[in-house]
Amino acid sequence: MVGQSISARLAELGHEAMLGTRDANKLSDWHRTAGAQVKIGSFADTAAHGEMIFNATNGAGSLNALKMAGEYNLSGKVLVDISNPLDFSKGFPPSLLVSGTDSLGEQIQRAYPSAKVVKTLNTVTAQLMVYPREVADGDHQVFISGNDADAKVQVAELLKSFGWNHIMDLGDITNARGVEAYLLLWVRMYGALNSGMFNIRIMK
Amino acid sequence: MVGQSISARLAELGHEAMLGTRDANKLSDWHRTAGAQVKIGSFADTAAHGEMIFNATNGAGSLNALKMAGEYNLSGKVLVDISNPLDFSKGFPPSLLVSGTDSLGEQIQRAYPSAKVVKTLNTVTAQLMVYPREVADGDHQVFISGNDADAKVQVAELLKSFGWNHIMDLGDITNARGVEAYLLLWVRMYGALNSGMFNIRIMK
Repeated sequence: MVGQSISARLAELGHEAMLGTRDANKLSDWHRTAGAQVKIGSFADTAAHGEMIFNATNGAGSLNALKMAGEYNLSGKVLVDISNPLDFSKGFPPSLLVSGTDSLGEQIQRAYPSAKVVKTLNTVTAQLMVYPREVADGDHQVFISGNDADAKVQVAELLKSFGWNHIMDLGDITNARGVEAYLLLWVRMYGALNSGMFNIRIMK
Repeated sequence: MVGQSISARLAELGHEAMLGTRDANKLSDWHRTAGAQVKIGSFADTAAHGEMIFNATNGAGSLNALKMAGEYNLSGKVLVDISNPLDFSKGFPPSLLVSGTDSLGEQIQRAYPSAKVVKTLNTVTAQLMVYPREVADGDHQVFISGNDADAKVQVAELLKSFGWNHIMDLGDITNARGVEAYLLLWVRMYGALNSGMFNIRIMK
């Protein structure tokens, strides 16, 4: 769902978007409608195609999906990590598969040291990632974390083109621990509000 | 520090506040100045004194401090849990001592089943807990979680008297998992903002 939202929005903004999947048949309805401008391919084809790669896979399967994408196809590129390491094995609300002194964002950066991993967008629902102004006219926050300053500038520019006004750079990729742990509060607020169309604004 | 802020504010609002400590000597300067209206005692004396008890101890020592307060002195009372189970053993930023499928709030509720545990205020810095209008004129959120509806009403009334306008009831005490995990993002935002005088507002 996140991959569909991101790729359709990228296509809408004039980018040559491609979505990688294990099973293109599952996307046929979407590809005839909202995703008509988006190319579909394998993880490897899609990673080879992209200048900027988005990891929009399930957190539990992200490292495996990136392995299928191929180290060569990720090397030197900006890798935007949107995934959350949520453990739904005991139902809803989930716990985290990794937390504390590590994060999925860091695991991905360690697995692909030549990729420029930027963690962002994982703190909001798919629709809001690409149309932030649908809530409070965009008056709320998105976070970015990563080790490469230029990569963060590129990602921030893209986020602005989506409609984001408030982009908070937390620092290096270890900050993924913070934004991933926040999901445990997010799922609770989602339960209380009975909607995923919300976000937080930092007040100071 | 949290105990000092809370007890001084309670005294300011006309309550008979008492602060429990292992070492009253450490508080002598404070007790001559900001804390002049606050009684000082042992954990047990303080828990016996209070109609409403605040756990404002270090998360790593909370269960031990409550043991010293005494089960009899907590029984049937509202126990406001402000603590965070932060692990600073590897320095700053901390990780969590408990997370995932449990929380410190739940541990306290299980240890004292006849107490009415309400988790709140742990998501902001001490000064902001009791003077929320010092940031954005109070236009930001505090959360409450607990199993006893009447206890949450009492705590919400007290929070309003502190100046809180936006109180979000997340549900039962298992929601402590969310607000405690949020601290991992809070410490990162604290690092980026270089100040603890901030909070989040839910935008929807």
